[in-house]
Formats: sequence, C-alpha cells, structure tokens
Amino acid sequence: MITVMRYGHRPMRDKRTTTHVGLVARAFGADRILLAGTGGVPKSILDVVDRWGGDFRVETVREWRRFLRDFQGTRIHLTMYGLPLGETIDEIRERSLKGDLLIFVGAEKVPPEVYEWCDYNVAVGSQPHSEIAALAVFLDHLHRGAELECEFPGAELRVVPSERGKEVKEL
Amino acid sequence: MITVMRYGHRPMRDKRTTTHVGLVARAFGADRILLAGTGGVPKSILDVVDRWGGDFRVETVREWRRFLRDFQGTRIHLTMYGLPLGETIDEIRERSLKGDLLIFVGAEKVPPEVYEWCDYNVAVGSQPHSEIAALAVFLDHLHRGAELECEFPGAELRVVPSERGKEVKEL
Repeated sequence: MITVMRYGHRPMRDKRTTTHVGLVARAFGADRILLAGTGGVPKSILDVVDRWGGDFRVETVREWRRFLRDFQGTRIHLTMYGLPLGETIDEIRERSLKGDLLIFVGAEKVPPEVYEWCDYNVAVGSQPHSEIAALAVFLDHLHRGAELECEFPGAELRVVPSERGKEVKEL
Repeated sequence: MITVMRYGHRPMRDKRTTTHVGLVARAFGADRILLAGTGGVPKSILDVVDRWGGDFRVETVREWRRFLRDFQGTRIHLTMYGLPLGETIDEIRERSLKGDLLIFVGAEKVPPEVYEWCDYNVAVGSQPHSEIAALAVFLDHLHRGAELECEFPGAELRVVPSERGKEVKEL
C-alpha cells in the first residue's frame, strides 16, 4: 500500500495545489492521501474518484506527527535537499515489494523531525520546483512508467486516446 | 530549444500553479516559458532564475494563437485525451534532435484549434491529474532522466545532497 501524506495544507491558499497533489497521487498509483492538519478535503478530488473509478481514499489526520513517527513501513520525504532519486529508487522499490510506503510531501516549511523520522530524504532534482511534479516523477520512477496504463475499476468515464480532439466513453 | 507555452493564466486564480509550471519547465530542462495572455510574470520564477542559475527565460505573448500556428518546429499539446506518452515520446525525441519543440500546457479549457495545430496531442496517463505533473513527466521521459543532473551556470546557490537535513553551498 502506498500512502501520500500532504503536509501544510492551508485551506485557502493551498486548495488548488492540494487538489493537484491528490489527483497525482491517485493517477500515479498511490492508494490514499492523508491531509495533515485541519483543512477540509477538496471536493474536486472526491469528484474525480467518483467518476473516474478506483478506490483511492482521501483522509485527514490531525495527529500527523504521531502517525509519521509510528508508521510501520518505509517513509520517504521528498525534498530538494535529499539524496538523488537515481541513487535511492531501486532500494525503495525493493522495500515496496515487502511492505508499505509513506511518501511525505510538504508545501510550507517542513519541521526538522520529518528529516529525522523518514527513512529516505529523496531529491527529484536539486532545483526548486514543485511538490506536485516531485510526487509524479517519484511515483513514475517507482513504478517504471507502468502506472500510466493502470485501469481504474468502477469508472463511469474512460478516455479513448485519440490523435485529435476528445473522446470519452461513458461506462 | 524547448519552449513551454502556458495557456489560460488568470493572474489571481492561477498564480501559484503558473509558478509551479514555470519552475518545472526550468528544472526539467526547458529553455523558456511563454505565458499566453495578459497576466504578469510571477516574480517567484524570476527570483529562482536569479539565485539558482541558468538562462531560463520567462516571457508573455499576447498573440498566442498566431505564435502557436506559425511556430517552426514540433508542437506538442499535453492533454489527457491524447495518445499515450509511451507511443509518442521516441518520435518526439527524434524530432527534438533536429529542431525546436513547443510544449503547450493548458489550465482552463483549451480551444479546439490547439488540438488541430499541434503535431502531437500527448496524454501523460488518461486520468485527470495536473498539468504541472504532466509537464514534469513528459520532460523527464524526453530527456530519459538526464535533466535531473543538469547544472545551472551562474548560480548563487547549490544544494549539496544529504541524507538528513539541508545543506546549501553559496557560490
């Protein structure tokens, strides 16, 4: 099971980026997102799960520190200050075959204990960019691109890939 | 040369996502971003270029339709309705060795002529997620991950990758 923990969700300011993080988590093969803090759950994530299928879960967790500290599995913190993705991903993939993963994704400044508690601090490039991009590329490397062909059971809608225009099948 | 064209930048609503798109374009090896429309340039992109190096350019273009239509090179529209990334990326990479690329990234609804004018409509997965993620994964596949080790000349700051914590070198 792959859990994404989204830290620093401030309801007003971060609503759209949290939505992006949630949709990326789902589309790239994570099983759930935990929103750390008191912000509500963006409705647009739930709408996508409803219409596009799968059993991706969206939850909030107030005691995120305890949850992260006591998590049974491999904890990965995505940060531009960490070790390169290329040096760590094979080991993390090995671990994912034997147990659960938690991927910690920050928005605002991340408290220092996160760097300590996580088993891996991983940099998707050492340049400032976007936690949304970092999560997508991390999951894409973890699954070696196979997640892009994933099917979502129970969908009402499915895209029929096309060279021009939009084709959507209602199921 | 790789240009990213960001369509549908509404200054208030999209400022943060446009910033993410711009930073991802830079970090994943594009040369410039063109903001289509009348919104200003987010200062945070320019700040990153100043401090973290490289010669990434940020420009606005009012006549984006004409620019896209008349662009000399290969035009790629990232859309969940397009052809799978895996089926198109090798051909696009081939073309990128011989000429320029323009990658069109939408936010709001994209006008139908974009689907017509672009040489490729490419889906980074056929699930709804994020134009930020789509751009990052597209560029990562285009460069086969090599962009993550790219150096940015003229930087004031450089990250020293570390297992725990943050180490930044001032240059």
